[in-house]
Amino acid sequence: MSELVIWTLDWVPMPDGPAGFVRDLRLRWACEEAGFDYSVKTVPLDGKGPDHLARQPFGQVPFLDDGDLKLFESGACLLHLAGKSEKLMPHDPAGAAETLQWTIAALNSVEMASVPWWFLEVTGAKENGLTDLLESRLDGLEAVLKEREWLAADRFTVADLLMADVLRVKKIREFGDRPASESFVKRITERPAFKKAYADQMSHFKAADKAKNKG
Amino acid sequence: MSELVIWTLDWVPMPDGPAGFVRDLRLRWACEEAGFDYSVKTVPLDGKGPDHLARQPFGQVPFLDDGDLKLFESGACLLHLAGKSEKLMPHDPAGAAETLQWTIAALNSVEMASVPWWFLEVTGAKENGLTDLLESRLDGLEAVLKEREWLAADRFTVADLLMADVLRVKKIREFGDRPASESFVKRITERPAFKKAYADQMSHFKAADKAKNKG
Repeated sequence: MSELVIWTLDWVPMPDGPAGFVRDLRLRWACEEAGFDYSVKTVPLDGKGPDHLARQPFGQVPFLDDGDLKLFESGACLLHLAGKSEKLMPHDPAGAAETLQWTIAALNSVEMASVPWWFLEVTGAKENGLTDLLESRLDGLEAVLKEREWLAADRFTVADLLMADVLRVKKIREFGDRPASESFVKRITERPAFKKAYADQMSHFKAADKAKNKG
Repeated sequence: MSELVIWTLDWVPMPDGPAGFVRDLRLRWACEEAGFDYSVKTVPLDGKGPDHLARQPFGQVPFLDDGDLKLFESGACLLHLAGKSEKLMPHDPAGAAETLQWTIAALNSVEMASVPWWFLEVTGAKENGLTDLLESRLDGLEAVLKEREWLAADRFTVADLLMADVLRVKKIREFGDRPASESFVKRITERPAFKKAYADQMSHFKAADKAKNKG
């Protein structure tokens, strides 16, 4: 097995920054679920240089090294990791297709509405023109989650991991009354692999902040 | 090879509706590139029923049958089709990973900004709070397309198909001066498979509109 390296930011503002929500967490979580060894490396938050943009043309994190193979986009990294372990995705054609479908639904049906909605909220739009769109997507998902425990293949997959991470954003969780979705997020984020990934990310950013304030 | 069925809408308003942009086009295009036989079936635009929602919980199209296997989300359908033909994606690990990365980038970095931006424009927001986000994503992509002809693996892949379809939305193409992106869209949509898929979708909706107006 080739060496896995997850790339994230060297530092984010504490305590009001995105610590606990930086998307390297998705990759840490997937590696913990699969039992993969991995290391974490960083690029500077300030002054995105050519090295960062060469790896991620939109200036974001995370990105992943899998030996010589290099990937960006958390969704692509998750599907790549899922191809390496049945713990993240069944590899039979029907199970893989269903996992793929729900992974893309998390990215392109739910997060496509939730992230821009959240962005308008935090940048202070007086009326958020995406509220109806977000509501309709969350309602569609709630109807699905009322009927089943897992999104795909009757078992935990990387699609549950990603959807729970999308829904975990606090503003989205406070938005409307959707008990099946709430229970889903609670159940999926109670997994030891999530707790380990979350604690490790928090430790990373707390240590970085302590070092910065000393320096 | 099992039977492929692409599901779309029975009718959309003409001439100002989304004909030419309904996302079954992405799947038709991929099938034309790969040389797959396929048929097209429809669900009603008006009154999304339980049959539609059982197949697509957000009430959208397209969805795909591949024999017994059923998928929704255009991005998931494209990656599924790409797994069946080297014409859509190289199947070596590095080529497949790069294609996956740029397919997800089209969905989650570019379209995540462009669709909500477009939605705010057409619903008449006075100030579009997503303009800076969209500009930054389009600029990141322009810098990449200045340096290369294809997004992934030095050849045409399903990532080019999807990114060109995302950028093909007229409002996005009129937004800013990005010659490499403009040339990319022109080059990719000059492919015979795109022209065939586009003509077939237009014929479908023109015939449906004619039948409706007669009835």
